[in-house]
Amino acid sequence: MVWCSGWRLASAVSNAGGLGLIGSGSMHPETLREHIQKCQAATSNSFGVNVPLLYPEIEKIMSTIVEENVKIVFTSAGNPMTWTGFLKDKGITVVHVVSNTKFARKSIEAGVDAIVAEGFEAGGHNGREETTTLCLLPLVRDMMNIPLLAAGGIGSGRAMLAAEALGADGVQIGTRFAASIESSAHENFKNKLINLGEGETILTMKQLTPVRLIKNKFYQQIAEAEREGSPADELKKIIGKGRARKGIFEGDLDEGELEIGQAASYIKSIKPAAEILLEIWNEYEVAKKTLIGRTT
Amino acid sequence: MVWCSGWRLASAVSNAGGLGLIGSGSMHPETLREHIQKCQAATSNSFGVNVPLLYPEIEKIMSTIVEENVKIVFTSAGNPMTWTGFLKDKGITVVHVVSNTKFARKSIEAGVDAIVAEGFEAGGHNGREETTTLCLLPLVRDMMNIPLLAAGGIGSGRAMLAAEALGADGVQIGTRFAASIESSAHENFKNKLINLGEGETILTMKQLTPVRLIKNKFYQQIAEAEREGSPADELKKIIGKGRARKGIFEGDLDEGELEIGQAASYIKSIKPAAEILLEIWNEYEVAKKTLIGRTT
Repeated sequence: MVWCSGWRLASAVSNAGGLGLIGSGSMHPETLREHIQKCQAATSNSFGVNVPLLYPEIEKIMSTIVEENVKIVFTSAGNPMTWTGFLKDKGITVVHVVSNTKFARKSIEAGVDAIVAEGFEAGGHNGREETTTLCLLPLVRDMMNIPLLAAGGIGSGRAMLAAEALGADGVQIGTRFAASIESSAHENFKNKLINLGEGETILTMKQLTPVRLIKNKFYQQIAEAEREGSPADELKKIIGKGRARKGIFEGDLDEGELEIGQAASYIKSIKPAAEILLEIWNEYEVAKKTLIGRTT
Repeated sequence: MVWCSGWRLASAVSNAGGLGLIGSGSMHPETLREHIQKCQAATSNSFGVNVPLLYPEIEKIMSTIVEENVKIVFTSAGNPMTWTGFLKDKGITVVHVVSNTKFARKSIEAGVDAIVAEGFEAGGHNGREETTTLCLLPLVRDMMNIPLLAAGGIGSGRAMLAAEALGADGVQIGTRFAASIESSAHENFKNKLINLGEGETILTMKQLTPVRLIKNKFYQQIAEAEREGSPADELKKIIGKGRARKGIFEGDLDEGELEIGQAASYIKSIKPAAEILLEIWNEYEVAKKTLIGRTT
């Protein structure tokens, strides 16, 4: 949720009864500090910070989190052994995001409090195995007993119910909130994503770190380079720096990296986060009643 | 289910309370006739025939189906407009397999009786959009009211329950039955698939017709040719003819095309089809009770 989930979205979700997360992946440490403080001022409910562990300023990010008294940290895109102990020692609840059972096992060994199992359909950074949420959840569920959250393709109440059926205790929702009023994404990006059809996102950059994004002009450049057999170094040059900022935050739909999940094809409106949460909850309740009432 | 689902598997599934399907994709018309007749002798319950519409001998396949009085046909890999009318005129129930809403709409226009929505995780031929079962099902459900079956990643009772939560009326299961006693696949193939880990299948041959298969030596040859930017014609030469037969039926795990779905990573044993059905059903019942009992 880089460039989408700042203090506005995180506090709105927490105020509406969810657990809001500040996405630190797009923030320098001092920006993150500001977002944490503003979030604390905007909600008295719990919220957390998501930290991609491959982040270059990771040490400063972690010390900022501790200094600002954050209680919950979601780590992703890296080895859970590196930071879990540090955070747990400070009394922080640690949740790690995984895309396979190998890293789920590592997370448990590292002592995390919960695991997010994120499937192939998720936006942004993703796993190399391409295992979908439907196939991944039961595998992770069967290997451990700590709380399991589902991510990837969960943009609706029905998907939340399906995740529960597969053994999840809860869900992590990104894409749906990227199209919220409180999302800090550019209007161009929000409007683009509520008009996306099936097959308009793709998991790409598999030679580097796989990322799901919208098939725009920037993607076509990467795809062409890949078709021509360009090595990783050349791809890195084409990608350059600041592409996600350019696309998601500045709204350059051609030259920016437009990270979003497959669930976007289900989203047709930009709404306040609280309304989105209520809508998901209501759909979940209806779907559950329907399921219980079935006489299969 | 080419080279897996002949009369033995189809009749075993039908005798156990499922709807068994003969996979005609690997059969010449006279072979199909033999399988239909043997299936009729082996079960008094309903069964069907799956017909990939891109099949070269399609006209003879269809006339065989009519001559042998088959009551249910699942069509896939092609345009539902071409054969649905012909089959419906003969009083045959027609179900079409789709991987996107565009073809779901075409199927309804063509007058099919039900639709199978098959996600990215499914084995064998697959869609170009890479939409997963979790994301595809609600999209198809919301556009129509005829019966909807879920396919792709459905190898367990929990997955069946999840499919229902997403709006499916039933499920189509392939991969799990490829590893049944009655499957006509070679023992080598069955043993390979019950030992598969996550990420050991991949959707490939995207320049031609996308297919999910096991990443074996044959796949590595294709992948290398693709990395080198080989055109479609060259890929076709590498693939050649009879690769699925070689792999699945003859058990050549290096040179054969080993089509299977992601659900394989959940399968750990080769069992009679009736036992598999019962196991799925029991897991479904337990998962449903657990879901109903939750106080979320």
